[in-house]
Amino acid sequence: MNSDIKVSINGPGLYDLTHKVEKELDKSGIRSGLLTLFIRHTSASLLIQENADSAVARDLENWLNRLVVENDSLYTHTQEGPDDMPAHIKAALTAVSLSIPVENAEMLLGTWQGIFLWEHRHMPHVREVCVNIMGE
Amino acid sequence: MNSDIKVSINGPGLYDLTHKVEKELDKSGIRSGLLTLFIRHTSASLLIQENADSAVARDLENWLNRLVVENDSLYTHTQEGPDDMPAHIKAALTAVSLSIPVENAEMLLGTWQGIFLWEHRHMPHVREVCVNIMGE
Amino acid sequence: MNSDIKVSINGPGLYDLTHKVEKELDKSGIRSGLLTLFIRHTSASLLIQENADSAVARDLENWLNRLVVENDSLYTHTQEGPDDMPAHIKAALTAVSLSIPVENAEMLLGTWQGIFLWEHRHMPHVREVCVNIMGE
Repeated sequence: MNSDIKVSINGPGLYDLTHKVEKELDKSGIRSGLLTLFIRHTSASLLIQENADSAVARDLENWLNRLVVENDSLYTHTQEGPDDMPAHIKAALTAVSLSIPVENAEMLLGTWQGIFLWEHRHMPHVREVCVNIMGE
Repeated sequence: MNSDIKVSINGPGLYDLTHKVEKELDKSGIRSGLLTLFIRHTSASLLIQENADSAVARDLENWLNRLVVENDSLYTHTQEGPDDMPAHIKAALTAVSLSIPVENAEMLLGTWQGIFLWEHRHMPHVREVCVNIMGE
Repeated sequence: MNSDIKVSINGPGLYDLTHKVEKELDKSGIRSGLLTLFIRHTSASLLIQENADSAVARDLENWLNRLVVENDSLYTHTQEGPDDMPAHIKAALTAVSLSIPVENAEMLLGTWQGIFLWEHRHMPHVREVCVNIMGE
């Protein structure tokens, strides 16, 4: 079963998708199986990370921004702005798809795990994440 | 079919899970399909890497430790110790889930591929890895 | 359903697999479900990235080569040449498996998404990528 989550994004950082994904699982009626997320973009990615302390999200963002800088003289793909090539690199270093087992109609996430969309571009975007659920 | 592997961890590094995963596959009776691993933590991750020369694991560990240092003045999430935020970053750069095709009741791993849990924290932990197997 | 793609590789960089994967999907006859790719190697990886401007592939390659250098004094796994340990590290930072939802007999890739094998070694290789398709 495939469905689609659309997320309105307003700049870089982590956006918590956990509740939206839970809703898609509820709608599917599937109680045991595998839920897969797939993001249909090359400058934003998926991440499962700590959902308790928002400092984790901030530190992740700042650390990755320092690793993958804008206006690097190495870049030749520069027509779409200084944040474009860094966004592709950040997406390549993180996940385009994630799979989470489902039991008793719930994802088997750990206590501190939230599901996030990690936006890497400055401009507002509407991002699409496919939700595939296999099972019964 | 979902099951669970528990692993007793005693500090950072790679822990070979291949045989434990093979046992779960045997128990399932599934001969053709897809096996997915999912780690229920945000400071440890999953990795498929060379299982022949242990120098690969050591070099991977040392390289990542140099890239993601402790006591970085950038970190604001510091309450849980100097290895906590580096562990979250290392987990974000590596895999929370992995999927491996199954045929003739065996995972289609390459000759040199082993499945590892990559622990990023100093303290001993018991880590949980979910095993989902779809197929027949 | 499992099948296999073999790719003749002639040095490092991105190799577009999208059409080869589409062919495997066509052969399967599956119209709705989940397609998973798994690379059977530890010194090459999988990537979904922009397929429009080849400068993106070149910049990705150059950026990663600068991050993960050859002849690093940190390496102890050096018997197989100066590009071997960097290749393992690059593979560890990128994907060994990718899952893409399928609907109406097509992968739900975004407009700009292509599927690539990312070779990290200098020598020519024949690389194997498993294709698993679940669904109906």
